Amino acid sequence: MTQQSNPLSSSPTALTPTLELAIDLMSRPSVTPEDAGCQETMIKRLEKAGFTVEKMPFGDVKNFYAKRGTKGPNLCFAGHTDVVPTGPEAQWKVPPFEPQIVDGVLYGRGAADMKGSLASMVVAVENFVANHPYHDGQISFLITSDEEGPFVDGTTRVVDTLMERNEKVDWCIVGEPSSTNTLGDIIKNGRRGSFSGDLTVFGKQGHVAYPHLAKNPIHLASPAITELSETKWDEGNEFFPPTSFQVSNIHSGTGATNVVPSTLNTQFNFRFSSELTFDQLKEKVIAILDKHELNYEIEWTYNGLPFLTPPGELVDAITDAIEDTVNIKPTLSTSGGTSDGRFIAKMGTQVVELGPINATIHQINEHVDADSLNQLTCIYELVLENLFTNK
Amino acid sequence: MTQQSNPLSSSPTALTPTLELAIDLMSRPSVTPEDAGCQETMIKRLEKAGFTVEKMPFGDVKNFYAKRGTKGPNLCFAGHTDVVPTGPEAQWKVPPFEPQIVDGVLYGRGAADMKGSLASMVVAVENFVANHPYHDGQISFLITSDEEGPFVDGTTRVVDTLMERNEKVDWCIVGEPSSTNTLGDIIKNGRRGSFSGDLTVFGKQGHVAYPHLAKNPIHLASPAITELSETKWDEGNEFFPPTSFQVSNIHSGTGATNVVPSTLNTQFNFRFSSELTFDQLKEKVIAILDKHELNYEIEWTYNGLPFLTPPGELVDAITDAIEDTVNIKPTLSTSGGTSDGRFIAKMGTQVVELGPINATIHQINEHVDADSLNQLTCIYELVLENLFTNK
Repeated sequence: MTQQSNPLSSSPTALTPTLELAIDLMSRPSVTPEDAGCQETMIKRLEKAGFTVEKMPFGDVKNFYAKRGTKGPNLCFAGHTDVVPTGPEAQWKVPPFEPQIVDGVLYGRGAADMKGSLASMVVAVENFVANHPYHDGQISFLITSDEEGPFVDGTTRVVDTLMERNEKVDWCIVGEPSSTNTLGDIIKNGRRGSFSGDLTVFGKQGHVAYPHLAKNPIHLASPAITELSETKWDEGNEFFPPTSFQVSNIHSGTGATNVVPSTLNTQFNFRFSSELTFDQLKEKVIAILDKHELNYEIEWTYNGLPFLTPPGELVDAITDAIEDTVNIKPTLSTSGGTSDGRFIAKMGTQVVELGPINATIHQINEHVDADSLNQLTCIYELVLENLFTNK
Repeated sequence: MTQQSNPLSSSPTALTPTLELAIDLMSRPSVTPEDAGCQETMIKRLEKAGFTVEKMPFGDVKNFYAKRGTKGPNLCFAGHTDVVPTGPEAQWKVPPFEPQIVDGVLYGRGAADMKGSLASMVVAVENFVANHPYHDGQISFLITSDEEGPFVDGTTRVVDTLMERNEKVDWCIVGEPSSTNTLGDIIKNGRRGSFSGDLTVFGKQGHVAYPHLAKNPIHLASPAITELSETKWDEGNEFFPPTSFQVSNIHSGTGATNVVPSTLNTQFNFRFSSELTFDQLKEKVIAILDKHELNYEIEWTYNGLPFLTPPGELVDAITDAIEDTVNIKPTLSTSGGTSDGRFIAKMGTQVVELGPINATIHQINEHVDADSLNQLTCIYELVLENLFTNK
């Protein structure tokens, strides 16, 4: 990676193994579902550290599962090598695939989401294995290049394969950028479920001057949309915020101002807590639509179950590691969008997301504090210590 | 018009002067704002009947004002030579600009709206003038080729010109197809006013997973749209149905199902009675939007004032003429869409719309009962008799 020497010579930040590997991975333009050699780089390092690596490509998507050790609890590090598109490159402070550390801040696509985390994971494991070549338990990696894409041929298919062969994963740390203001302030011990509805309300087209001969689907749907948007679905619980409903799109009309349209189409999305199921929410939506006597069709798209990792071994190991490294106690949270954690949780795995600050993910000039990645390496390594040596 | 002899030879319907002229006019493809020679045909006939004709073209639009007589009340026949597009010609029973009488029914674009009426008017006046060459009062024609178009350079500009020169028009019969089930069952003695609003509601874009960071304009606007659509604006009155409000278009959304959009755009239309003014209705709409604390912009498009011709000389003359011709008593109505009558009413004119059955206007296979046009000629002629000879 020719980008490394030049930018870094202009910066006093020390080039640690974690930052070296992060910059190597970030230099590869792996816009989803591309991997651009990232996984091969990781695989070489992990094989050197004694891992057995199994490549699991599905369709266009590269994935691998790597494991070291044969017995005892399995701690899996999970993540993705793909990144979202750069947006207008001219607006970037540095070329998005030519990462640089400027005044102690690492800029480039994937710095926070989540090549920085991948580098920290690999280096943490290398350090731990070097110090504890005969450690207890099993350490694994589940890496995909399809987290930012349609998430069809990525983690979910790897998980299906592992489940078919009864592979057990007890604990999983997903490297998603969970932190908000400072590294480790928030870890995600669950995520809400998500589904969408595509609703078409049928009316009857006509002339606005003869409304009694028409049925205006906008007038018919509006009270139902109002009720849906004002409904309190649940109160959430100790771990989940209340279920939320948002209409994302609404379209009706012929373009003419004197025509009552025949149909209205709208799409909405639920993020739901563990208090309610997908089926219960569907029933409630249908009851509201029926109450308003709408003539409608609805199509559902199910994105994922909610999952929850209650406080326990994994959460404790992570909490202690964060406190020992950066001297703060993390807050548990289940807010925010979906991640591949939902697929891994299907295995009965305790899943926690822990990664750098997410303030700039998916944005122009994505960046992280360079030293926070070194700290993240320490935290991941301490989790291994806590789970596999301190017991 | 070569179309006349052939199709009519296959039909037993007698080719009256009214039907001959209707077929002549309908054979000319005068899709708005084209006139295709219709006005020239009418002008030649009217000049022959002693009318002084003034052509008043504005922009692309042909108009003329013709008058016979110099003193006494002025009865004006108003109408338009333009027609709406044909739609798919293959779906027509007869080519839309090759009118034919089939089993006593005249098919072709403009049969009902409103070349049939124009033919009846011209023939009625010719007959009346032939019988009463020294009639009382003045007879006039106000004809445009822009009623189906943007109605900018048509009747409204002719009326402005007439008003500038203090031309007085006491009574006006607009040949719009007012009848519903049988010729003469309904005459329109007024029309509701009309205006549109183009409303943009501002929210704040965001991710559906973080609704507290976004403001969903669909959720914000929906209760206001519900209230607007459920509001009873007035009760109407003896002559007008209640004011009606219809949303014609609504659009919001980025297309993505996980994004809260930043704005919502909607258009609505009022048809309003004489109980409320444009300004009063605007105020009521704004009060509702403000009550719902919306951040919005709104643009108003004003289409026309309501007008009303209470029972009196003109209505009586028409009612009697209909009763004498087809033996029914017409119902007065102000329902339905706008017409050029609203512009003529600005002159203080008593305006009534009287024409054939409107069931097929603007449709594929537009048609009228051929004999109803002959009856319409009788009615128009009797109105002239009632106003100018029976007093």
